[in-house]
Amino acid sequence: MNEFRILKIKQSVFADNDRDADALRAELKAKGVFLLNLMSSPGAGKTTALRGTIERLRDEFNIGVMEADIDSDVDARAIQQTGVRVIQLHTGGMCHLDADMTRQGLAGLGTDRLDLAILENVGNLVCPAEFDTGAAKNAMILSVPEGDDKPLKYPLMFTICDVVLVNKTDVLPWFDFDIEAVRARVASLNPDAKVIPISARTGEGMDEWINWLRDALVSWRAR
Amino acid sequence: MNEFRILKIKQSVFADNDRDADALRAELKAKGVFLLNLMSSPGAGKTTALRGTIERLRDEFNIGVMEADIDSDVDARAIQQTGVRVIQLHTGGMCHLDADMTRQGLAGLGTDRLDLAILENVGNLVCPAEFDTGAAKNAMILSVPEGDDKPLKYPLMFTICDVVLVNKTDVLPWFDFDIEAVRARVASLNPDAKVIPISARTGEGMDEWINWLRDALVSWRAR
Repeated sequence: MNEFRILKIKQSVFADNDRDADALRAELKAKGVFLLNLMSSPGAGKTTALRGTIERLRDEFNIGVMEADIDSDVDARAIQQTGVRVIQLHTGGMCHLDADMTRQGLAGLGTDRLDLAILENVGNLVCPAEFDTGAAKNAMILSVPEGDDKPLKYPLMFTICDVVLVNKTDVLPWFDFDIEAVRARVASLNPDAKVIPISARTGEGMDEWINWLRDALVSWRAR
Repeated sequence: MNEFRILKIKQSVFADNDRDADALRAELKAKGVFLLNLMSSPGAGKTTALRGTIERLRDEFNIGVMEADIDSDVDARAIQQTGVRVIQLHTGGMCHLDADMTRQGLAGLGTDRLDLAILENVGNLVCPAEFDTGAAKNAMILSVPEGDDKPLKYPLMFTICDVVLVNKTDVLPWFDFDIEAVRARVASLNPDAKVIPISARTGEGMDEWINWLRDALVSWRAR
């Protein structure tokens, strides 16, 4: 078998965003607004999972949603149907949101009387992982059709997440996907991350996710 | 129904890469190396489609592959099994390859006696669309589970592609995916782009894709 080499290509230097994210986190804590940053590949089911989340929690919490995309208002229109406060953010080609961009989004959304603000980040496993948005918690969705090797290829995303939702479990029979391998790969990168299999389409697993999110919000408030 | 606003967030300015890409394209033309840039979301099936492509073309052309990833050598190992020349590129966190990074990769791979060099770009629908790699042709894969709305949400990617492979057609019965809607959305962004449905797993549609690629290479040579 032929050999291959591994060639390291030079990395660019990002502007420092961490201090700004900490400042935003403190501002939101003072206001009592729990910010959840939701990330995934394109088409992993963020918006569908988010709709299911809103439907299950809107009687308990005042929810607002920021839909970040390069273009289109498809997602904001989908969220609009749930009746919660929503804003579409166009990133002008940017592949992620940093803390300052998130702050712009929150100002546009309005945070008065808000309990839970959810940022649906740009569909991307690379850039959003590198920029702290100031969120209280980071969630990511890995969908079954993407394959169980994603934690190997995008380790930073799985390292910075508090919870990994493995979505589209309803199509598991049609894909070669080993959920135990995902659990092991996530655990080796990030032992504290919770892995929850869900199907946003059928509702399977959504109760466990909702309980996780409610607990996270309630213990954050008590801190 | 509640209203939502569209808020434009400021775009960052990218370094000019276009001249460098044109220079690389001229270098490769002089050497007779046809460079194909293959892009998609994470898990859309780039590597599986690539394996099928290599198996069908390796007797006609001398092929070399550059596998770009944030981390891991999973893809280079998969391509290695086909017996063609392959190199794994680690981007050090970068979400795309520009022309200079591609040039580094080609130098690592070696271009002597090569007819067809294929760059498997980082899994991402945003950043790779913004950086010309110097490729003769750009191909992208949209997989059925990602949804038919992706041309609306990532228009630049669909605008810069010469061919769109709609992969995983074998699971069409299990997803709500309208291939005619994709054709119409791609056509409105990019009337010259060819849309080819394939299943890299079953081989369906691969002949049409192989014919497209062979024709592209042969007419590029004749230019």
